[in-house]
Amino acid sequence: MFVAKFFRMAPIIAGIILTAMTSVAGAFEAFQPLPDSAPGPADNPQSVEKVGLGKQLYFDPRLSVNVTLSCNSCHNLAAGGEDGRSQAVGVYGRKSRRSTPTIWNAAFHSTLNWYGNEPTLEQQVKDHLLAKEIMGMPNAAAVMARINSIYGYAEQFKKIFGGKESVTYDNIARALASFERTLITPNSAFDRYLAGDKEALSPAAERGFKRFKDIGCSSCHFYVNLAGPQPGLQLKTGEGFWELFPTFAGSAYDAQYGLLDDLGRYEVTGMDNHKRMWRMPTLRNVALTAPYFHNGSVPTLYDAVVVMAKTQLNKEIGDDDASDIVEFLDSLTGEFPDISLPHLPSLDNGTLYFDKH
Amino acid sequence: MFVAKFFRMAPIIAGIILTAMTSVAGAFEAFQPLPDSAPGPADNPQSVEKVGLGKQLYFDPRLSVNVTLSCNSCHNLAAGGEDGRSQAVGVYGRKSRRSTPTIWNAAFHSTLNWYGNEPTLEQQVKDHLLAKEIMGMPNAAAVMARINSIYGYAEQFKKIFGGKESVTYDNIARALASFERTLITPNSAFDRYLAGDKEALSPAAERGFKRFKDIGCSSCHFYVNLAGPQPGLQLKTGEGFWELFPTFAGSAYDAQYGLLDDLGRYEVTGMDNHKRMWRMPTLRNVALTAPYFHNGSVPTLYDAVVVMAKTQLNKEIGDDDASDIVEFLDSLTGEFPDISLPHLPSLDNGTLYFDKH
Repeated sequence: MFVAKFFRMAPIIAGIILTAMTSVAGAFEAFQPLPDSAPGPADNPQSVEKVGLGKQLYFDPRLSVNVTLSCNSCHNLAAGGEDGRSQAVGVYGRKSRRSTPTIWNAAFHSTLNWYGNEPTLEQQVKDHLLAKEIMGMPNAAAVMARINSIYGYAEQFKKIFGGKESVTYDNIARALASFERTLITPNSAFDRYLAGDKEALSPAAERGFKRFKDIGCSSCHFYVNLAGPQPGLQLKTGEGFWELFPTFAGSAYDAQYGLLDDLGRYEVTGMDNHKRMWRMPTLRNVALTAPYFHNGSVPTLYDAVVVMAKTQLNKEIGDDDASDIVEFLDSLTGEFPDISLPHLPSLDNGTLYFDKH
Repeated sequence: MFVAKFFRMAPIIAGIILTAMTSVAGAFEAFQPLPDSAPGPADNPQSVEKVGLGKQLYFDPRLSVNVTLSCNSCHNLAAGGEDGRSQAVGVYGRKSRRSTPTIWNAAFHSTLNWYGNEPTLEQQVKDHLLAKEIMGMPNAAAVMARINSIYGYAEQFKKIFGGKESVTYDNIARALASFERTLITPNSAFDRYLAGDKEALSPAAERGFKRFKDIGCSSCHFYVNLAGPQPGLQLKTGEGFWELFPTFAGSAYDAQYGLLDDLGRYEVTGMDNHKRMWRMPTLRNVALTAPYFHNGSVPTLYDAVVVMAKTQLNKEIGDDDASDIVEFLDSLTGEFPDISLPHLPSLDNGTLYFDKH
């Protein structure tokens, strides 16, 4: 509870904690280069076969109830790992109220989903397959039945997970999460800068980085993913890392961007102090993931910076500062790995999903 | 008009023509191995850069009106080049009445679309981007404006097509068609068999091939794509290659599978003799493209063979024959090339599509 309680408070306090943490030499670095790989949890170690299976599942529309969407439909790996829309569109054209977060580097998040209610990638997969406005599968058994009906999948699950019944819902989630842990975009200009290449940032980006820290953005946007504490921290506390947004309500932005319309984490906990609490989004590749905020209401990164400064730090920043900070945020775009399209296992001359004619 | 007029008649007549054509030694081979490459038309020669650009466009959801679907959403290159559904689902969940045809080897079709009304891949692209129930773009200008607003695309168009205004609707179609011409699945067991490897087909598949020819399937399903005359023929005659389906109406299948509900080519020409006329679908990779027929009403390949024999040839074939023919059709599954996911050019910190919050 310790961390959560403190971080639930205003970012000024978070800033003090951050300063205190960074001052313990070696114990904590506020910013860290993105690692090349992300290890799986104890019950889901990475393996080439499992990642390969997870990749097929990730691109397979047969994981959605009406065989129209794959994970990649919204979390597009040909782009910024999301859909470029304000709000996500799931099966049957069902619209979510929220903007799709990027899947890139999700392995380094301490908690997932805008609510911050998904402690692991595995859990996120399990919930989103069944979410009515996302993949829309009726229940875990239906997902398992689908996978089991495709021989090429059943065969792989048996080989990878063994046991009598290898196509379990847990194993489906494990395979998908394993693939997702490979979705890392290292070697951004900022990463090279952190690694010692002081020329990697332009003068404007370097000024932006300084302003980013000075005005307090880094109170929340710190560590590997510029999204708060390292993965696993919430597993110790039973809580995640989230923040009140807008912290300083009352500006004209509230109405302009509908910032008070969604109660955020409160919706899943029902706790009053979770009203408008949100998981911290990563800033990595943020230049590629417009439009911004949980409701995708802000079209440009420049506007997002100006709004954030006002709503979270009660600061009206000038054009120079905003431009420099955008320049810094641009430096967080990493290198995207080449991904070959999987060859999905076929049904044997049959049909899995069947509309009435 | 010569070819069209004859082929519009019953397959018995088509069979006679086929026999006559094949009897001219060397002039015409009823079945031919799939070539490794497909040349573009004179005004759209293939080039590495153009194919690369077309591939990005093919995977880019920004070509659909609400940024939810790419070409690959329905013509899935991770699978059989279609969506595995009975009927296609386009933007806003709009359902088509028709089943998505495979994009694989479409370069070798003499005419495209179920109507048979698209003479070229270029024309098909142009029409489908604007089809209300597919990509739903309001007009060509809107597509061009989208592409032009993405610097990484505008830059490539300029380099590849030159001229003052390189992002034309024609050039967008040219790039996409160029990529589509690379979507070839060579070296199926049947291709190896045709090339001289008599062991490539199992005894059942070889029996099936013989039955396929003997009972008359090959009257229509012949040549490279097992879908009728070679590409370009319709360009000479101004007509395509299509067939009446059901040719022998009146069986119980009409009602069971709704075979009389859709008037096919008549819908685009308004000509009485085009009622229930359909473009010949390819049989290449047919084992991967269930469910079958224009309305996706038949769930298995076995059933499709039995129904076709009855409705097109007025033959009730037995279980052995049907199974052997399925075995032959299985031999038409080719080798699928490895395709790397493109890196889509990003907008510069901005938003292309924007829902109201």
